[in-house]
Amino acid sequence: MTQPDCNTILARLADTLESRLPRNGGDPASSYTAKLLARGPDAFLKKIGEEATELVMAAKDNTPERIVSETADLWFHCMVALAHYGLRPEQVLAELARREGTSGLAEKASRPEQ
Amino acid sequence: MTQPDCNTILARLADTLESRLPRNGGDPASSYTAKLLARGPDAFLKKIGEEATELVMAAKDNTPERIVSETADLWFHCMVALAHYGLRPEQVLAELARREGTSGLAEKASRPEQ
Amino acid sequence: MTQPDCNTILARLADTLESRLPRNGGDPASSYTAKLLARGPDAFLKKIGEEATELVMAAKDNTPERIVSETADLWFHCMVALAHYGLRPEQVLAELARREGTSGLAEKASRPEQ
Amino acid sequence: MTQPDCNTILARLADTLESRLPRNGGDPASSYTAKLLARGPDAFLKKIGEEATELVMAAKDNTPERIVSETADLWFHCMVALAHYGLRPEQVLAELARREGTSGLAEKASRPEQ
Repeated sequence: MTQPDCNTILARLADTLESRLPRNGGDPASSYTAKLLARGPDAFLKKIGEEATELVMAAKDNTPERIVSETADLWFHCMVALAHYGLRPEQVLAELARREGTSGLAEKASRPEQ
Repeated sequence: MTQPDCNTILARLADTLESRLPRNGGDPASSYTAKLLARGPDAFLKKIGEEATELVMAAKDNTPERIVSETADLWFHCMVALAHYGLRPEQVLAELARREGTSGLAEKASRPEQ
Repeated sequence: MTQPDCNTILARLADTLESRLPRNGGDPASSYTAKLLARGPDAFLKKIGEEATELVMAAKDNTPERIVSETADLWFHCMVALAHYGLRPEQVLAELARREGTSGLAEKASRPEQ
Repeated sequence: MTQPDCNTILARLADTLESRLPRNGGDPASSYTAKLLARGPDAFLKKIGEEATELVMAAKDNTPERIVSETADLWFHCMVALAHYGLRPEQVLAELARREGTSGLAEKASRPEQ
């Protein structure tokens, strides 16, 4: 496939989500995201747990299209949460980039015990 | 902050994860990711459930740094799963882009009942 | 409060859930459980992920009534799953009893690495 | 199998968990539960998300023994949380009993939209 422009996709989606915030005039009657944001954190955080479970089930079923689709659902709802807290997906990507270079095991070791 | 180049970050991380696959010679002794991939799907899928829960807790605590960090953890483990199934994060972003244009509620309505 | 009779409660609820199974004539039109069971495993397994997340959020909010209520929701949906797979909550309790006597750490050590 | 006495099992396990609380002198060095409780809510709440995911995976694999075992793990960690918040599993069972009589769909309808 043609490579999608991830910079543009993430930035545009984050901008759209921000415009759906109650404080930015998002209209719950016309937008799924505005409705979710208007209901407050528990509503969209619950979706993160739900979509994570759906991704796990799609993976257990070994169905590539559903794995991609459920991952998109999960990342979408993460971005809804980010928007609510005034955060951007670019910060998540920057964090992932920051961790690279340190090997996973070294990185894991550097974290406080979870 | 300087905008991170999301195209580069995602592509490079996905390439690294692919190199950690058992079939590509990933060494469980020297890499957290190789170890996780060598243990098979249940090991990294469990992490998706765990990291989703940690993100929810960070959000409930309203701690921006931990929200970014836990989202990065969650997306990282999603990308480990994608690598195992021969999929790429660019496909997830393309799916998110495809959905845009349709409003969330219209998109939701077009899906089979969940 | 008066001690509830847990034997009776679990047995009666499990019997009810079994009667809602499609193979036992459960009617999706008149029962939430029958509807859930008729939709198949992904429908009620997703609820387990969702209710687990709701319990975590109620705990973070430190709201005792919601903690009890969400735990009941979670255990209920676990029992729906048990019914589908021909299992009984009494088996879960027997497993919990079997583990007692071994201290938690000893028990943990006796399990294969997770 | 012989019917286990659920009243005794739940009461005894809840009593044991209470004795592992830091405020009751639980020793993190000798007990998995005391260690978990000493680390605070995020430690055992994370386990709820993790064990819920493991139950979902065992169910997808259709492995009855693991389904029982993972449900026991999940209920165990729920009971650890209940102990921390000064709650008892008997309250959860009482809540399940209270809901019976109302059909599931009626019960669902009586709740505020989730």
